[in-house]
Amino acid sequence: MDFGYTEKVSALQEKLLTFMDDHVLPANAEWVRITGQGEYPMALIDDLKGKARAQGLWNLFLPGLKADEPGVQLANLEYAPLAEIMGRLSWASEIFNCNAPDTGNMELLHLFGTPEQKAAWLTPLLEGQVRSCFGMTEPDVASSDATNISTSIRRDGDHYLINGRKWFTTGAIHPNCKLCIVMGVTDSDPEANAHSRHSMVLVPMDTPGFSIVRNVPIMNHHAPEGHCEVIFRNVRVPVSNLLGTEGKGFALAQARLGPGRVHHCMRTIGQCELALEMMCERALGRVAFGKHLSDFANVQDWIAQSRVEIDQARLLVLRAAWLMDQKGNAAARVDVSAIKLVAAQLQTKVVDRAIQVFGAMGLTPDTPLPDLWTWGRAMRFFDGPDEVHLRTIARQELSVVRKNLGRTALYYNLPTR
Amino acid sequence: MDFGYTEKVSALQEKLLTFMDDHVLPANAEWVRITGQGEYPMALIDDLKGKARAQGLWNLFLPGLKADEPGVQLANLEYAPLAEIMGRLSWASEIFNCNAPDTGNMELLHLFGTPEQKAAWLTPLLEGQVRSCFGMTEPDVASSDATNISTSIRRDGDHYLINGRKWFTTGAIHPNCKLCIVMGVTDSDPEANAHSRHSMVLVPMDTPGFSIVRNVPIMNHHAPEGHCEVIFRNVRVPVSNLLGTEGKGFALAQARLGPGRVHHCMRTIGQCELALEMMCERALGRVAFGKHLSDFANVQDWIAQSRVEIDQARLLVLRAAWLMDQKGNAAARVDVSAIKLVAAQLQTKVVDRAIQVFGAMGLTPDTPLPDLWTWGRAMRFFDGPDEVHLRTIARQELSVVRKNLGRTALYYNLPTR
Amino acid sequence: MDFGYTEKVSALQEKLLTFMDDHVLPANAEWVRITGQGEYPMALIDDLKGKARAQGLWNLFLPGLKADEPGVQLANLEYAPLAEIMGRLSWASEIFNCNAPDTGNMELLHLFGTPEQKAAWLTPLLEGQVRSCFGMTEPDVASSDATNISTSIRRDGDHYLINGRKWFTTGAIHPNCKLCIVMGVTDSDPEANAHSRHSMVLVPMDTPGFSIVRNVPIMNHHAPEGHCEVIFRNVRVPVSNLLGTEGKGFALAQARLGPGRVHHCMRTIGQCELALEMMCERALGRVAFGKHLSDFANVQDWIAQSRVEIDQARLLVLRAAWLMDQKGNAAARVDVSAIKLVAAQLQTKVVDRAIQVFGAMGLTPDTPLPDLWTWGRAMRFFDGPDEVHLRTIARQELSVVRKNLGRTALYYNLPTR
Amino acid sequence: MDFGYTEKVSALQEKLLTFMDDHVLPANAEWVRITGQGEYPMALIDDLKGKARAQGLWNLFLPGLKADEPGVQLANLEYAPLAEIMGRLSWASEIFNCNAPDTGNMELLHLFGTPEQKAAWLTPLLEGQVRSCFGMTEPDVASSDATNISTSIRRDGDHYLINGRKWFTTGAIHPNCKLCIVMGVTDSDPEANAHSRHSMVLVPMDTPGFSIVRNVPIMNHHAPEGHCEVIFRNVRVPVSNLLGTEGKGFALAQARLGPGRVHHCMRTIGQCELALEMMCERALGRVAFGKHLSDFANVQDWIAQSRVEIDQARLLVLRAAWLMDQKGNAAARVDVSAIKLVAAQLQTKVVDRAIQVFGAMGLTPDTPLPDLWTWGRAMRFFDGPDEVHLRTIARQELSVVRKNLGRTALYYNLPTR
Repeated sequence: MDFGYTEKVSALQEKLLTFMDDHVLPANAEWVRITGQGEYPMALIDDLKGKARAQGLWNLFLPGLKADEPGVQLANLEYAPLAEIMGRLSWASEIFNCNAPDTGNMELLHLFGTPEQKAAWLTPLLEGQVRSCFGMTEPDVASSDATNISTSIRRDGDHYLINGRKWFTTGAIHPNCKLCIVMGVTDSDPEANAHSRHSMVLVPMDTPGFSIVRNVPIMNHHAPEGHCEVIFRNVRVPVSNLLGTEGKGFALAQARLGPGRVHHCMRTIGQCELALEMMCERALGRVAFGKHLSDFANVQDWIAQSRVEIDQARLLVLRAAWLMDQKGNAAARVDVSAIKLVAAQLQTKVVDRAIQVFGAMGLTPDTPLPDLWTWGRAMRFFDGPDEVHLRTIARQELSVVRKNLGRTALYYNLPTR
Repeated sequence: MDFGYTEKVSALQEKLLTFMDDHVLPANAEWVRITGQGEYPMALIDDLKGKARAQGLWNLFLPGLKADEPGVQLANLEYAPLAEIMGRLSWASEIFNCNAPDTGNMELLHLFGTPEQKAAWLTPLLEGQVRSCFGMTEPDVASSDATNISTSIRRDGDHYLINGRKWFTTGAIHPNCKLCIVMGVTDSDPEANAHSRHSMVLVPMDTPGFSIVRNVPIMNHHAPEGHCEVIFRNVRVPVSNLLGTEGKGFALAQARLGPGRVHHCMRTIGQCELALEMMCERALGRVAFGKHLSDFANVQDWIAQSRVEIDQARLLVLRAAWLMDQKGNAAARVDVSAIKLVAAQLQTKVVDRAIQVFGAMGLTPDTPLPDLWTWGRAMRFFDGPDEVHLRTIARQELSVVRKNLGRTALYYNLPTR
Repeated sequence: MDFGYTEKVSALQEKLLTFMDDHVLPANAEWVRITGQGEYPMALIDDLKGKARAQGLWNLFLPGLKADEPGVQLANLEYAPLAEIMGRLSWASEIFNCNAPDTGNMELLHLFGTPEQKAAWLTPLLEGQVRSCFGMTEPDVASSDATNISTSIRRDGDHYLINGRKWFTTGAIHPNCKLCIVMGVTDSDPEANAHSRHSMVLVPMDTPGFSIVRNVPIMNHHAPEGHCEVIFRNVRVPVSNLLGTEGKGFALAQARLGPGRVHHCMRTIGQCELALEMMCERALGRVAFGKHLSDFANVQDWIAQSRVEIDQARLLVLRAAWLMDQKGNAAARVDVSAIKLVAAQLQTKVVDRAIQVFGAMGLTPDTPLPDLWTWGRAMRFFDGPDEVHLRTIARQELSVVRKNLGRTALYYNLPTR
Repeated sequence: MDFGYTEKVSALQEKLLTFMDDHVLPANAEWVRITGQGEYPMALIDDLKGKARAQGLWNLFLPGLKADEPGVQLANLEYAPLAEIMGRLSWASEIFNCNAPDTGNMELLHLFGTPEQKAAWLTPLLEGQVRSCFGMTEPDVASSDATNISTSIRRDGDHYLINGRKWFTTGAIHPNCKLCIVMGVTDSDPEANAHSRHSMVLVPMDTPGFSIVRNVPIMNHHAPEGHCEVIFRNVRVPVSNLLGTEGKGFALAQARLGPGRVHHCMRTIGQCELALEMMCERALGRVAFGKHLSDFANVQDWIAQSRVEIDQARLLVLRAAWLMDQKGNAAARVDVSAIKLVAAQLQTKVVDRAIQVFGAMGLTPDTPLPDLWTWGRAMRFFDGPDEVHLRTIARQELSVVRKNLGRTALYYNLPTR
C-alpha cells in the first residue's frame, strides 16, 4: 500500500499545471466573452490544442492503445490526478483531447470498432479533428432503469431504421461534432431478456432524419457545446454501422462507463478543490460583525468538512481507478457506482458551502460557482441517478452477507431462554 | 388557541384559487412564451390586473390603511394564506398588486412618507400604475452585516448627493418601474453608532446619474423584471426626498422587513406545496425496476419528510404573522428571523427532492423546478443570510437564559464531592 | 386562528410550574439516590401524589369523563402544554396520575370497558391506587408491522388461554403494577383479514403463567419501573376479561394511541426545552480558546436550530391535539404519525447538540442528558418506528394527489413538439 | 500509489482472524457473563494472552522497538488493518497487548522514558504483566482547550506534589493497573506561554493521596476496566518520575496521540464493519408489510451509504498511517485530526442505522449495538471534541490559502467596470 504519486505522475501534474497557468487560464476571460455571445470559440480552442499536443499533453486518458497511436499511454490511476487538474475549468479538457463524451466514444470504438469504423471515426477523434456525441437518455421514460430505453433500431434489409428521441446528448451542437453513437432497441431476438435487447449504432450527424431540437439548459445553464434534445426520424444507416454485436448494447455501455465515470469524478474533485480554495480566499477577505469570516467557527467547520470530504472522495476514486487497472473494468463495477454517488453529492455539498461564504455574489455568473453547482446537481443524474448507484452498492453488500449468514452470531449477548 | 382559518379567510382563499384557475394559470404558457423572448408581457399583466381588481382581489397585503384607500383590509394572519396561493406561480402576485418589493415600499411610504411623498408615490403604487425598487445590497462589502453598507448620501445644500453601487435591486427593469428607494450612509452625526448612520432616500429613476448596469442572473436565471446592478453617480435629489428621519435607515428597514418576510415565506410555502404535489404526481406516473417510483420506500420518505417540514414551517410563519398582528412588528423580530431561516432552507430541501424524483427532466426549464430551486437558494441570502438569522435567534435565546441562570440546577444528578 | 393559550390553560401552567418548583424538583436528588440503589421510592411518590391531588392537579389527561370522576376535565389541546411541563422530569407525570402507559390504559377502559371492568380496574387507576402495563411489542417478529404480532389468545370454553412473549412492557416492575392489557391473535374468524385477527385481554398480573423475565435496559439505561420482557405461558383468564370485541384489537390500539402519542410528544418538547436551556447555560459558562462557548458561531447555530425546530414541533403537536378535539382521534391519524416522527427525531437532534456543548460531562449520569438521549432514541421505535410513520404520511399524501392528478399541468413550461 | 495490502499484512490479517474465530469469539459469552456480574475475567484474559503471545500476536502496535524486545515490528500502515480486526470486539485488543491507553503509554515511555523508568514500567507493560492509565481530562474546565488543564504539579524539594481531579481515566480499575501518567501544570517558568506550562509525571497507583472516586458510566455503560474519576490529593513522587522535560507536556501529548488515534480510528472502522454486517443480516431476515427489510429502498440506501462512508474513512485512516510512517507523527498532525473527526462521526452514523434496522432489539444489551453507539458518541470527545479537530483542519487549510492568495482570480468571470 502506498499513497504517494509516482514520479511519472508528479512530473505530468507539474507539466499540466504549468500549461494551465501559462496558456489556458489566461484565455478564460476571452472564452467567457465569446461563449457569452452564443458562439463557440473554435480559434481559441484550436490554438490551445495545437500547443498542448506539441507538448505531448494529448489523449492522456486512453489506456492500452498501440504505441503508434497519438498520445501518452497512461493507466487510469495515472490519468486520474491529471483529470482533476483539467476539471477545475469547465472547458479545459478539450484542449488535451480528453473531453467527454468523446473519451468514452473513443474507448468504445477502440474496444469494439471494426477496422473501417476505426479508420472513419476513431482516427479523426484521436487526432482531435472531429467530435462526437452519445444518445442514451430519453425524455419519455425513467432512464434510471436503462431497460426502459425505447428508441427503435429496426433492421430493414442492409440498413437499420432508427426512430426515437434522446436528450442530454452532450456536445451535439459543437461545431466539429460529426458522429452520434445511439443506443436503442434492436429486438432481433424476441426471447431476449431485458438486458439483451439493446444495441449501439454509429450515426453520422448529417444523415437525413437526424435533427437537433434544442440545447436543453441545465438549471438554466446553456452549455456552449450543448446538452441537446435530438430526434431520429426514419434515420437510415447501413448495418455495418452497428457497433459490436446486436443485443450487446448494455455490455458496451458498461465498458464505456467505467473509465468515463472515473474521469467525471476526478474532474469533480478538481472543481471541489477550486470551490474550497475560493471559499477560503473569500472568508479571509470579508469582514462582518468585526471579524473576518474565516474567524467564525461555522465557516471554519464548513472549510474543514469540505477538506475531509474531498480527501476521502479522492481516495475512493483513486482506489477505483487502481482496481480497474488491476482487475479490469468489470471487477470495479460496484466501486465505480460508489465513486459516482460520492462525487456528485460531494460537489453539491462543497459548492453550496462556498456559495454561502460568498454571499449573494456566489449566485452570480461573476463567479464559476453557479455553474459548478449546476453541474454537480446534474451529475446526480448523469451516468445514473444516485438511487441506482445506492441500489447497486446495497445489493452487492447484501449478496456478500447472504453468503456468510450467521457470521456475527458470537458478537451478540443473548440471554438464555 | 385555534388552528382553523376563519370563514373570511376561507372565502378569500376560495375566491383567489378560483381566480388563479380561471384566469392566471391559463395565461402561463403565454407568459412563458413572451418572457422567453426577452420581453415583459405588460398587456397580459394589465388585463389580469384589471380583472383581479374588479373582483376586489387587490392590495390584499397592506394592514391598517384608511378605509378610503383601494383594496381589502387584512391582518397579516389573514393575508398569509393568500400569499401562499399567489406564491405558487412566480409572476402571480403582481396581478393582485401584492408583489415584492413594491409591497414593502408601499408599507414604508404608508408608515413614514410625508403627504407629498404619499401623493407622488404611494397613491400610484396602490393603484398599480407604477412600480418601484429598493437599493440595499452592495457588491463590494459583506451585506450580511448591514452596517457595512457604504453608499454615500451626502447633504449638499437642499439636496442629497448619492454615490454608490447596489445589486440585487429587484424590479428595476420592469417597464413601469419609476422609483428607487435607496439606503446609504448619511453620517450627519459623526458620533452616531453604527446603526444610526444610515438613511433612506426616494430616487426617481429618471434622475441623472442613476443607471442600470445589468440584470444579474441568479444561478443563471434571468428574472424578467430584473435583479439589477445599479449605479448612483452624483445622483442629486431634493432633501424632501428623505424618507423618515436621517440616521433612522435601519429602523425603517426593520419596519419594512417584518411583513415582507412573512409574505416571502408564505410564497415559499406555496412553492414547496407545488413541488411536493409535482413530486407525488411524477412518482405515481413513472416506473423503474418494475415498480412505480411512489412504491419505493426512499421516495416515500422524501414525500413524507416534505409534508411534515412544510406543515411545520407554515405553522411557524402563521404564528409569526399572528404575533405581528397582536404585538407589532418589533415584538416579532426574532420570530421573523426564524421563519426566514426556516422557509429558505425548506425550499431548497423540498425542491431538491422533487428534482430527484423527476430525474433529468427536473433540471430542465420544461418544469418550474429549476427556478423554484434557484429562488430557494437565493432566498438564503435575500433579507439576510441564514447565518445572520441564526445569530439573531441564538443571541435572543442566550439572553433569556442568562437572565435565569441556574434554573436547571435541580435537574442534575451531581455526586457529592 | 389563534396561537395564544387560553386563560384557563395559562393558569394551569402557572400552577403546575409552581408545584414542580415547590415540591417535585426539590425531591429529585432523593429520587435519584433511591432509584440508584435499585429501589422504587414509593413513599416519596405517594407523598407528592397526595399533595398534587389536593391541589386538583390530577388526571389532567383524560377528556370526556363524567363529572363525578376524579380530576380535571381538559381537552387534548389544553392538556398538551401541561404534559410539556411534566415531561421535563422523567418521573414527574406519575405525581399527577398522568403517566404512560396508565393514561392510555385508562382511556381504553373508559372507552371500551364493561361496567365490571371499570369497577375493577378503571376506578383504582383513576384513584392512583394501582398501576398497569401494556403488552404489545414482541421480540421475535418485526413489530413495525403490527400484524406480525403473534401472541396466541385461544378460546378454551369460558376462558382464554394466552401464550406468548412480549418486551418493552413499560411499568411491569412498578411495585403497584397489577394489570397487564395484552394484545394477541384470537383468530376466531379464520377468514378475517390481517387487521381483524387481534384482540385485547385484561390479565391480572398475579395470574399463574404470567412472569417477568427481566427489566430490559434501553441503551444501558434501567428504568426504575421497567421496560420488561414478560412471558405468558398458558395464562388462563375468563372471557369476561376481553376488552371490547374480538378481532378489534387494532381498532382499540388506534383509539389508544392518539392521545397517548400527543402526550409522549409534548413530554418530548419539554425535554428538548430543558436540553436547550442546559446547553445555553453551559455555553455561557465555559471558556475555550479565550472565548465563551456561547460566542462561537457553531454553538450559536446549534442553539438557534434547536429553538426553531422545537417551536415548529410544538406547533405541529398542538395542531394535532386541536384536530383530535375538533374531529376525533380517527381524523387525526396521519397527523399523529407526523408528530410522533417529528418529536422523536427532534429529541435525538437537540439532546445530541446539548451533549456536544457539555463535553464529556454530557456523557455522564451527572446530567440528565444521557437519559434524555436514550429516551429520544428509543422513541424512534415506541409507538411504531419512524419508517412506519413516514410510510403512513406518504401514502396519505399520494392518495390525495392521486385523486387530483394533472392539477399541476399548467405550471409546466413544456415546449411544443 | 498502490491500494493493496502487502503479503506480510495479508498473512497477519489471516492469522489474526483465525485466532479471533478460534479463541476469542468463542469466549465472548463467558466474558459477558463474568463482567455482567461486575467482575473482571482475569483468568479468561490471561489464558488468551498466553495463546496469542505463543503465536507471536503480541505488541503488534509499536513501531521501531529494538529487535530484542518482545513482539512483532510493524509500521503504522501495517498495524492499522490488524487494529481493525481487534476492534470488532471491545475487549479483544488486550489479548494481544494492544489496548489503549497502554499502547500510548508504552510509546511515551519508549520515546521519553529514562532507563530506570523503562525498566520499572515499560518492560512489564510490554510483557503484559501490568496495566497503566492516563490522567488528562478534567471535570472542572473545558478540556477541549487543553491549556485549561489545571491539575497542579508543584516542585517541593526532590519531589513533585500533585493535586487535582481527573476523569475519563480509562483502565484505572483494571485489576492489573499499577501506573498512572498524569498531565498537569508545573509552571516552573512563570513566563512560559500557555503551551509550555504542562508536564507529565509517572504516579504509581499505590502512592498515598491517589484515589479512585468512581467508575463514571458513559451513556449509562459501565466499562469493566473503568473510565474513572480519580483524585490526586497531595500525591508526592520523586522528581525522577518526571517524564521527559518539564514544560513539554503538550509536546509529549502530541507524540502520544498520533499512533493512538490511528488505532482508535481503525478499531472504529472494524466496529462499523460489524454494525454494517449485522444490519445486512437483520435486513435479510426480517419481514414487514410482505417484504424483507432488505428489499426496502430506504434500508438499501442506509446499507449503501454505510459502505461508501466506511470505505472512505478507512482510506483516510490508512493514508494518515502511511504519512506517519513516511514523514513522522508531527507531519501528520492535521491528517490525524481529520481521521479522528471522521471516524467518530462515522461510528454514530453507521451504528444508528443498524439500530434502526434492528428495531427495538437494537436498543437492548442482547446486541453489541448500544455499546458500539455509546462508544462512538464518546469518541466525539475522546482525544479532543469534533470542534477542535474541525478548527485544526480549517486553520491549516486557511493558512495554505493565505500563502497563495489570488490563485483563483482567473477562474472568475467578472464584468468590466
